Amino acid sequence: MRTNQIIVTELPTGALSEENFQMRETVLPEIGEGEIFVRTILMSIDAANRAWMQGATYREAIKVGDAMHTGSLCEVIESKSSHFIAGDIVFAESVWANQAIVPARKAQKMQRVPQLSYLLSVYGIAGKTAFHGLVSIGRPIPGETVVVSAAAGSVGVYVGQIAKAMGCHVVGIAGGSEKCSWVVNELGFDACVDYRDPAWSKTLKGACPNGIDIYFDNVGGEILETVLFRMNERGRIVCCGAVSQYDSNIPSGPRNLPGMVVVKRLRMEGFIVMDFAKDDNKALRALQNWVATGAVKVPEDIVDGLENAPAALIGLLNGNNRGKRIVRVGDDPT
Amino acid sequence: MRTNQIIVTELPTGALSEENFQMRETVLPEIGEGEIFVRTILMSIDAANRAWMQGATYREAIKVGDAMHTGSLCEVIESKSSHFIAGDIVFAESVWANQAIVPARKAQKMQRVPQLSYLLSVYGIAGKTAFHGLVSIGRPIPGETVVVSAAAGSVGVYVGQIAKAMGCHVVGIAGGSEKCSWVVNELGFDACVDYRDPAWSKTLKGACPNGIDIYFDNVGGEILETVLFRMNERGRIVCCGAVSQYDSNIPSGPRNLPGMVVVKRLRMEGFIVMDFAKDDNKALRALQNWVATGAVKVPEDIVDGLENAPAALIGLLNGNNRGKRIVRVGDDPT
Repeated sequence: MRTNQIIVTELPTGALSEENFQMRETVLPEIGEGEIFVRTILMSIDAANRAWMQGATYREAIKVGDAMHTGSLCEVIESKSSHFIAGDIVFAESVWANQAIVPARKAQKMQRVPQLSYLLSVYGIAGKTAFHGLVSIGRPIPGETVVVSAAAGSVGVYVGQIAKAMGCHVVGIAGGSEKCSWVVNELGFDACVDYRDPAWSKTLKGACPNGIDIYFDNVGGEILETVLFRMNERGRIVCCGAVSQYDSNIPSGPRNLPGMVVVKRLRMEGFIVMDFAKDDNKALRALQNWVATGAVKVPEDIVDGLENAPAALIGLLNGNNRGKRIVRVGDDPT
Repeated sequence: MRTNQIIVTELPTGALSEENFQMRETVLPEIGEGEIFVRTILMSIDAANRAWMQGATYREAIKVGDAMHTGSLCEVIESKSSHFIAGDIVFAESVWANQAIVPARKAQKMQRVPQLSYLLSVYGIAGKTAFHGLVSIGRPIPGETVVVSAAAGSVGVYVGQIAKAMGCHVVGIAGGSEKCSWVVNELGFDACVDYRDPAWSKTLKGACPNGIDIYFDNVGGEILETVLFRMNERGRIVCCGAVSQYDSNIPSGPRNLPGMVVVKRLRMEGFIVMDFAKDDNKALRALQNWVATGAVKVPEDIVDGLENAPAALIGLLNGNNRGKRIVRVGDDPT
């Protein structure tokens, strides 16, 4: 069986570029026991893709010559696992490819919903990450001020909308005035501050007249450093990502860490969404209710074509996305 | 009423020096309603003294011309408060002085114990900080590995001994081989690593064959950065201080923050001992038991004479102390 894959031809040492990837036709081996053969419908594009190229994280590091790793929504074509049958829709730890063979233990059966893309956004890792991080680590109390960076990003759009739905004052941080307007006007944040504006620290202060109780940090670096100075005592930093550090080998750390954590008695806590798998049903129930009432909107940012995946990822790392970025590789099942 | 005080004549911009202080004879005002007049017996010397000169923390910043702030163990000479009578032993937020007038609300009556200095060390802020930070924030499980920096410091000596008493593998970090030997031989830590040794990171790795579950951080900076790389997933960083940052205006932050917190799902949490005041009785009960059985030893580092307080503080910031440093200003009450 032949398929197109996108291979990592070189591990980036600085900014990721399209030249780090190459499309190749590959012959897939025979499907073995405990495996499933799938066709890719939608691929999730994540900042974490870049982290996997940086070394081992909670997932194995990507090596030169590997097909690029991804989480994908797929249709099962053939199954040699008792857990799946042909026609199942699964979320799989797969690769950038039209078709793939995946160990059954790395696939999870999904419900067929009218909009399959929602399974990768609001009901997928993005929505669940926002929910679990905000609710279980941030522990917001109505009336508190919640700030989220990468506010127009896949997770940020849900963090802010969930915090609003929970009665908080919500301020986003994003790059560029157009993006900030979108966050406020489309998603209903109370304010959104453009970190590219040299005076953004003052703007942030003005937008948070009662200080900051929860900072949902998707970026790390200088933005974290600036926000730390505005945190209230006993504030919480939900450490979800450090996208500002992924694309460079010379990261520099916030100079006020751990000083601010000590003086303001802050709690900084990292997590990955799998840590809260036992609470996924609670998250989905809440998210479904909010989507039904319109309290949480689901922006769609879907790029067409496997061949456009490298550009889609690079664009994401440059902040070009609006909410969850997805690459469509195949049609929805009929 | 005349008394000697030590005044801050200049706020340090870099390393603290004796020239930042001057002894002055001062005339104290009349004692007012709600105040107590005390004579100082023992003064607590703390890294936090230096932080108070850096700006407002949880305590008001020290200004030029102020007598240096301190926590002191004092005997009440005269009281215009219904809460105290002459002869009471109190722990007071006072100043570096032979005698002082203190608002009664800034004093706390203490039990007379055979060794008054224990009220400033193991039963004082040092012991309670170690207990609350380790137990309530670190939450050790027997068999886990606990690392503590400034291991020979006022808090560190108790963190390590408490962790040992709770069944953990305990590794200290301290400056100089002599100090490290003292920590192991006198206090019973499993190992102590000398961070002045260029190969200390490897030594730390060898001393923690199962990784690090809890890091009780008294220093911040590069030591924190190094320890972060050795933390186990779901590890906890008890953020107690950043002494490496107090004595400088150009701190640089750990370059792996918040990256390591995200990837390893760490929790970093700051606290001050007052946050756990409601649990002080639990802490004291446990500490008294351990002192009685010899599981926790109380090293004494007492400098004689008010005039030696600046040198005692500077020495502490340079790491010359062994356990809690105290300045004796007056005799124990008869």
